[in-house]
Amino acid sequence: MKILVLHGPNLNLLGKREPDIYGKVTIQRINRALEKLAAENKVTVDFFQSNHEGEIVDKIGRIRGEYQAVVINPAAYTHTSVAIRDAISAVGIPAVEVHLSNIYAREDFRRQSLIAPVVKGQISGFGVQSYLLGFLAAIELGKKKK
Amino acid sequence: MKILVLHGPNLNLLGKREPDIYGKVTIQRINRALEKLAAENKVTVDFFQSNHEGEIVDKIGRIRGEYQAVVINPAAYTHTSVAIRDAISAVGIPAVEVHLSNIYAREDFRRQSLIAPVVKGQISGFGVQSYLLGFLAAIELGKKKK
Amino acid sequence: MKILVLHGPNLNLLGKREPDIYGKVTIQRINRALEKLAAENKVTVDFFQSNHEGEIVDKIGRIRGEYQAVVINPAAYTHTSVAIRDAISAVGIPAVEVHLSNIYAREDFRRQSLIAPVVKGQISGFGVQSYLLGFLAAIELGKKKK
Amino acid sequence: MKILVLHGPNLNLLGKREPDIYGKVTIQRINRALEKLAAENKVTVDFFQSNHEGEIVDKIGRIRGEYQAVVINPAAYTHTSVAIRDAISAVGIPAVEVHLSNIYAREDFRRQSLIAPVVKGQISGFGVQSYLLGFLAAIELGKKKK
Amino acid sequence: MKILVLHGPNLNLLGKREPDIYGKVTIQRINRALEKLAAENKVTVDFFQSNHEGEIVDKIGRIRGEYQAVVINPAAYTHTSVAIRDAISAVGIPAVEVHLSNIYAREDFRRQSLIAPVVKGQISGFGVQSYLLGFLAAIELGKKKK
Amino acid sequence: MKILVLHGPNLNLLGKREPDIYGKVTIQRINRALEKLAAENKVTVDFFQSNHEGEIVDKIGRIRGEYQAVVINPAAYTHTSVAIRDAISAVGIPAVEVHLSNIYAREDFRRQSLIAPVVKGQISGFGVQSYLLGFLAAIELGKKKK
Amino acid sequence: MKILVLHGPNLNLLGKREPDIYGKVTIQRINRALEKLAAENKVTVDFFQSNHEGEIVDKIGRIRGEYQAVVINPAAYTHTSVAIRDAISAVGIPAVEVHLSNIYAREDFRRQSLIAPVVKGQISGFGVQSYLLGFLAAIELGKKKK
Amino acid sequence: MKILVLHGPNLNLLGKREPDIYGKVTIQRINRALEKLAAENKVTVDFFQSNHEGEIVDKIGRIRGEYQAVVINPAAYTHTSVAIRDAISAVGIPAVEVHLSNIYAREDFRRQSLIAPVVKGQISGFGVQSYLLGFLAAIELGKKKK
Amino acid sequence: MKILVLHGPNLNLLGKREPDIYGKVTIQRINRALEKLAAENKVTVDFFQSNHEGEIVDKIGRIRGEYQAVVINPAAYTHTSVAIRDAISAVGIPAVEVHLSNIYAREDFRRQSLIAPVVKGQISGFGVQSYLLGFLAAIELGKKKK
Amino acid sequence: MKILVLHGPNLNLLGKREPDIYGKVTIQRINRALEKLAAENKVTVDFFQSNHEGEIVDKIGRIRGEYQAVVINPAAYTHTSVAIRDAISAVGIPAVEVHLSNIYAREDFRRQSLIAPVVKGQISGFGVQSYLLGFLAAIELGKKKK
Amino acid sequence: MKILVLHGPNLNLLGKREPDIYGKVTIQRINRALEKLAAENKVTVDFFQSNHEGEIVDKIGRIRGEYQAVVINPAAYTHTSVAIRDAISAVGIPAVEVHLSNIYAREDFRRQSLIAPVVKGQISGFGVQSYLLGFLAAIELGKKKK
Amino acid sequence: MKILVLHGPNLNLLGKREPDIYGKVTIQRINRALEKLAAENKVTVDFFQSNHEGEIVDKIGRIRGEYQAVVINPAAYTHTSVAIRDAISAVGIPAVEVHLSNIYAREDFRRQSLIAPVVKGQISGFGVQSYLLGFLAAIELGKKKK
Repeated sequence: MKILVLHGPNLNLLGKREPDIYGKVTIQRINRALEKLAAENKVTVDFFQSNHEGEIVDKIGRIRGEYQAVVINPAAYTHTSVAIRDAISAVGIPAVEVHLSNIYAREDFRRQSLIAPVVKGQISGFGVQSYLLGFLAAIELGKKKK
Repeated sequence: MKILVLHGPNLNLLGKREPDIYGKVTIQRINRALEKLAAENKVTVDFFQSNHEGEIVDKIGRIRGEYQAVVINPAAYTHTSVAIRDAISAVGIPAVEVHLSNIYAREDFRRQSLIAPVVKGQISGFGVQSYLLGFLAAIELGKKKK
Repeated sequence: MKILVLHGPNLNLLGKREPDIYGKVTIQRINRALEKLAAENKVTVDFFQSNHEGEIVDKIGRIRGEYQAVVINPAAYTHTSVAIRDAISAVGIPAVEVHLSNIYAREDFRRQSLIAPVVKGQISGFGVQSYLLGFLAAIELGKKKK
Repeated sequence: MKILVLHGPNLNLLGKREPDIYGKVTIQRINRALEKLAAENKVTVDFFQSNHEGEIVDKIGRIRGEYQAVVINPAAYTHTSVAIRDAISAVGIPAVEVHLSNIYAREDFRRQSLIAPVVKGQISGFGVQSYLLGFLAAIELGKKKK
Repeated sequence: MKILVLHGPNLNLLGKREPDIYGKVTIQRINRALEKLAAENKVTVDFFQSNHEGEIVDKIGRIRGEYQAVVINPAAYTHTSVAIRDAISAVGIPAVEVHLSNIYAREDFRRQSLIAPVVKGQISGFGVQSYLLGFLAAIELGKKKK
Repeated sequence: MKILVLHGPNLNLLGKREPDIYGKVTIQRINRALEKLAAENKVTVDFFQSNHEGEIVDKIGRIRGEYQAVVINPAAYTHTSVAIRDAISAVGIPAVEVHLSNIYAREDFRRQSLIAPVVKGQISGFGVQSYLLGFLAAIELGKKKK
Repeated sequence: MKILVLHGPNLNLLGKREPDIYGKVTIQRINRALEKLAAENKVTVDFFQSNHEGEIVDKIGRIRGEYQAVVINPAAYTHTSVAIRDAISAVGIPAVEVHLSNIYAREDFRRQSLIAPVVKGQISGFGVQSYLLGFLAAIELGKKKK
Repeated sequence: MKILVLHGPNLNLLGKREPDIYGKVTIQRINRALEKLAAENKVTVDFFQSNHEGEIVDKIGRIRGEYQAVVINPAAYTHTSVAIRDAISAVGIPAVEVHLSNIYAREDFRRQSLIAPVVKGQISGFGVQSYLLGFLAAIELGKKKK
Repeated sequence: MKILVLHGPNLNLLGKREPDIYGKVTIQRINRALEKLAAENKVTVDFFQSNHEGEIVDKIGRIRGEYQAVVINPAAYTHTSVAIRDAISAVGIPAVEVHLSNIYAREDFRRQSLIAPVVKGQISGFGVQSYLLGFLAAIELGKKKK
Repeated sequence: MKILVLHGPNLNLLGKREPDIYGKVTIQRINRALEKLAAENKVTVDFFQSNHEGEIVDKIGRIRGEYQAVVINPAAYTHTSVAIRDAISAVGIPAVEVHLSNIYAREDFRRQSLIAPVVKGQISGFGVQSYLLGFLAAIELGKKKK
Repeated sequence: MKILVLHGPNLNLLGKREPDIYGKVTIQRINRALEKLAAENKVTVDFFQSNHEGEIVDKIGRIRGEYQAVVINPAAYTHTSVAIRDAISAVGIPAVEVHLSNIYAREDFRRQSLIAPVVKGQISGFGVQSYLLGFLAAIELGKKKK
Repeated sequence: MKILVLHGPNLNLLGKREPDIYGKVTIQRINRALEKLAAENKVTVDFFQSNHEGEIVDKIGRIRGEYQAVVINPAAYTHTSVAIRDAISAVGIPAVEVHLSNIYAREDFRRQSLIAPVVKGQISGFGVQSYLLGFLAAIELGKKKK
């Protein structure tokens, strides 16, 4: 089983970016933790980070046949991208939406996710653990998919 | 470590209730799965189900000192109960909000959670696994609490 | 055939409560009129009144197998209770929503019923006769149910 | 006692029109059922159907002195006609609003009735029985009127 | 003269609950201060605290004939309970709404009180003194009532 | 100079219709008063009343070349008719909107006029005098038109 | 009979101010035309112009006993002044609201008048003639007042 | 194949009506162009224009069996007629909605079409060509229908 | 200790103004009652009434150093004055907002106070007693301030 | 004459993507159909597909001088891209907006097009034929442009 | 060239007022800095501060002929004064709106400026430098004006 | 000191794009003017223009350590990009938002800036001078930063 982890815009800055909201962990450390979890569960994991909505749409459009499930942190595009939403709907691969911070405890506009209605489920607020739990959820979804 | 799992209104009907939305699993089977997970992680788990907003508020008001974390599926009260929200804020114990169905893929009024802004994080859409992932999250939060 | 008539909050005060809106009839007299109508139609009727949202949810959760239809005046909970709505959806028994006063001729917040989308139909504005007409509707629904 | 039954726009198409929403009954069969009920209750019933808002307004404007009560299914005009609302207010005859389908379980715009605040009461969701129950209600109102 | 003081949900946690918003005073100390004030004014005071909306509605339904005025801190139910509002309207006893914190300086949803339109007046923001001032107001209202 | 006075729906019922809002004057008396005023000002006046939106649109569509100005009381259609609005725009004859009652002191939906943005001016609240003042305004507008 | 004509803010600039909206007439010419009309109708007219909300409130507060009716062009304060609205309500003298331009054909915020619900009627869109018609209306209202 | 072209209110005034928005073409010229296009495509075309919502509803109610497709320019009724919407739904004939002007580049209220959700598709903004393109679309839809 | 009592617009008309809402008491009698209460509590009280938003802002701007607390009835400016709000914030003296009538039982626009978020607390609905209770609150706040 | 056809995000997935909404046709087949139509009309057609908002903006910025008209299916960017809207406004080439599905019969957010106010016209709901009709419209617009 | 700098309500308190938002600078120091900048640019500057909306309107009404440009910090009146907006429109002198704090990073109601649509441009968030930059902008605008 | 000037989408078309709104100046001329101003102030300036949201996010993510301040004209992305907003927040470099046109005097959707709450200040409406004033502001901010 192969699972794709998609990191949205500005997540490349993690660790340097507003540590009071996002903590001090870097994207590299998140990826290492996910690789470890993947190995424990005997699945393969790939990573993709982009600040470009279009590149994320391109990537999702190519995942069919290659991955059984997707873990996506759409970050800022959570609230503004119909294109990513449509891409997820189009490919028909189960997706898990994750957020480091609790998006429901922040600014009003962050409480509306355009992505959530088309993913299988959403996990938000647990920092790095949001990714780890989301990865576990994706494994289960991938099993059913096969 | 002790963790309390709170089941909100109508969850006693699970399995009989709208199986196309909630699946066929019963609350008893969810509790068994959680007990197994708790044993694996060497923590204690207690369960509480009520259809009464006031009983849930009463219960939360008494958890301090006894539990290190709470997993709560507020069900219908997610969208209408300021009292449960205030109870969670008041006791200062980390809480994890879980939902069986993806509340963001249903009626509009189910997309607003009054509880989410005061919990640590939220997990929705994975069926029974929402509880299991939420329990894992609660264990991590309970460790920091201690 | 057995039909349950559910009276929501404050209906125990009927007759004493704002007679310009609700008239002078008491809940006892409504129940007597319904018993007479039930007898004429050769069906059994039970009554339940509670000011507690949770007790109404509990009661609805237990009606399957015992009743063929429900007549409910959710009163104040019409506008605030997702829990009662979910209970009605969950049990799959046809329900009829009734109101003594015309809720569309009162305050704005009384014009939105959270219950209406999950019941079979709604009758409002005819005083005691709302119950009687609703009971007749319930008998018809109960016949189809059998 | 004479009661007028007013059928609004497109009800002439009943039976042919979207049978999953409105059933297969025709307006003729509804009228026959009402005539039977009228005879049982020893009252006279007249019928009027029009697709024209203006004709319905004209008709209501002429009912005073001739009818003691009105049963009206305003259909599409429920949501758009201030003119029919004003006509009902103007003539001061008790009116009962009926709907075949449960308008609260359909599109958002069907949940707002411009007519409801000026009628005595509203019955919706019981198919043909909505008319029959509405007719019974109208008889009671007509009695008080006399 | 007898005055009832009603404490809403979570007020049993006072002193332990978010002291930066609600201060460190406990419900016991508030009651003691009210008893002292009652004695000075030669009136009797009773107390009732509940986390259950239904119990508060039950209690209000029974006050007629026994109390001349009510002081109520509806707490979380301020913003969600039509049932308590209807109970206050139904019994026709003058009521005073009090809040420890200034509800107009907090979250948006706390700025709307469903209770305020049916009470005589509202006092918010003065901590324990909100209760004391509310009690003085209730004495005046009770005098007129007699 | 010829001026057309258009009376909208239900104005044929005037005098009989809700006299607390609209007074006891009839449409005949309004027309007589307008004829008298027309004679004093040496202009010709014609009248047209209809409950049919379409007839009013038809009538407006034919006024060019025949009338120099229009006085219109759109009544209920004030708030719902884009068709009448478009007809007025289309013919390019100056129009004066009049209302017997003060539409800004009534229900919320009566405060929005779809007609007002395309007429020259609006007069509301003065009973019969609204028509008389509107007629004087129309004469002035008709003079400029010529 | 004495009638007060109140000119609101910026009307002192009339003639110089945005002539495409307000025309080239000055406040002096409006006052002269009103004096002429007053003389023809054998009533007395006084004028008051102020850019200060407070001065207008002061003035209205003193009119009782001195004037039988008021014509007011609240200009910008139409949309923002509860104080002027309350002053008009307080003194109980019939008031007529006038506007030079058609406020319903301009920016959205100009379509809401805080003043309109408390005046007898409103006239807008006829330039200077709005004042003249409003003055005629005020005379009629003043007669009834006497 | 027979196709019906329905022209809504005020389209009889075309050419005379606001030529800066609607151009100088008349309804007769549109019909001639459509007849030519029909002839080229070997289909029959009929025309119907009315300013009356009710007549349009009547007409649509009679088209089944006679026409295979409808081209409708609902004009002003686009934004206000639930009755026409329901008529189109009721008859189950494919319909094409056309507009001469680009309704999305005009007043806000013209941006909402009550008709669009029940037609097959919508064409707006191309003047006479909107009708011609809509007619071509209707032919294709009519072919599938047969 | 010195306390300033600020009366907002139209309060000079009290007693004459809408006695069904505001009672028959005059501002003079309120001031006398406050002087008596001040004397009993051994504090000094000054009064200031103005219909001018600017004068109230001027006055508040000068109170620092002279007064320990302010009681303000902003009347109409409650709902429209950001300037008074900013003045209260700017001077940093504890303020108590009072209203004679229950502003939450009146028109919608009176339910929003721009002032409430920056005062210590608010008292509304008790007539003259609102001032007396507010004055007692101000004394307590002034004590802490010293 | 040269016409550019722009395909927005996810249209590269057509045929594979949600065939119940978008049908089974691929972008290649649409382009072939358009080339055939272009040849029949003796115009040149170019195609451009991108999932990147920025690339679409880049492309539009370069079309002046090269193309006489544009057919654009903005897909997801219809509802979120001010940048594409501004690009179309900036270049001053007539544009036609097309949609495969009827966007007015889908989710609420798909009913608002940010692009529509700046294009010449919009065609939606006819599947591949939307493109073909749009292309015919573009040819007409391109002729006027030359 | 002469430029007028207008300071709105509460700016007289600057330095003393909420220094965390507005800094410690006083209005006198701002004026000194502006005089220095004026001298460097060989223009004359006058200052006017008022807490009275009416005085600011009066002042603006008199500036024509005397000043070539205006710099205005409307402070609280930014969000509530249509009168100041209308005054600026009326005099036709280019105006620059300045704010010390970033009004878009504060309370929601501060994000809407009634003044901004009628000024040439707006500068907000740079403290004293907002005035200096605004003054430079005013000089440029004044040059074009001459 | 180094300052980065970021030009958003479509600004490459400046001079050719809607000259009635944006003037005839080109981006090259703006950059030349800024270089001259930079030289006068002895600071270094770099420029970056992109139509791609993602490239702007990439660029901002790399500025830390290289620039002391940023001047950004987000153009269309002002109203739609949470990603750029988050990038600015993330890097912690003071930013100045500039707009050529007065965004508050245009379409409604242009009045909301998603960027404004996270920049230091905003300047809009002065054409090229918006950039020059913004650059001066950035120099001051950069000084404090060092």
